[in-house]
Amino acid sequence: MPIRPSQTPEDAAARWAEVRAQVGSRVRTLRTAAGLTQEALALESGLSRNQLIELEHGRRGLLFERLPDLAAVLDCEVADFFRDG
Amino acid sequence: MPIRPSQTPEDAAARWAEVRAQVGSRVRTLRTAAGLTQEALALESGLSRNQLIELEHGRRGLLFERLPDLAAVLDCEVADFFRDG
Repeated sequence: MPIRPSQTPEDAAARWAEVRAQVGSRVRTLRTAAGLTQEALALESGLSRNQLIELEHGRRGLLFERLPDLAAVLDCEVADFFRDG
Repeated sequence: MPIRPSQTPEDAAARWAEVRAQVGSRVRTLRTAAGLTQEALALESGLSRNQLIELEHGRRGLLFERLPDLAAVLDCEVADFFRDG
């Protein structure tokens, strides 16, 4: 049964922050598992180092069309950013 | 072997446009399969109708943190937006 995400601004903002935190944490886990520094992953994927730091800390999102670039360098699937291990 | 996405602005822009086109097409396929109009999916997921139209036509991306809202209404996984059928 499809569910309707709550539309109050506070709920939506909290939900998005939670998604950013989860994705950021998974990117960091995948990066360290691949033995890459933040500088190396940023350089290889076309992000600035600051963008990657903000992404990993869940402070800033990214347009979805840029996720495959990260996945390509991390040799994983975009889906891996949205599910645990 | 991880691959390094080409960093020329033209290649990156073309790659992102291709990702937007693929994701947009999959969202439309999932939406119609769920029997939802654009208005209904936009309303339920917290997007404006125009954002959804632009997304489905691959003309505009979306911050990744908003993808789970779409997936929840379409009763699918975010991963389904990044892989075929």
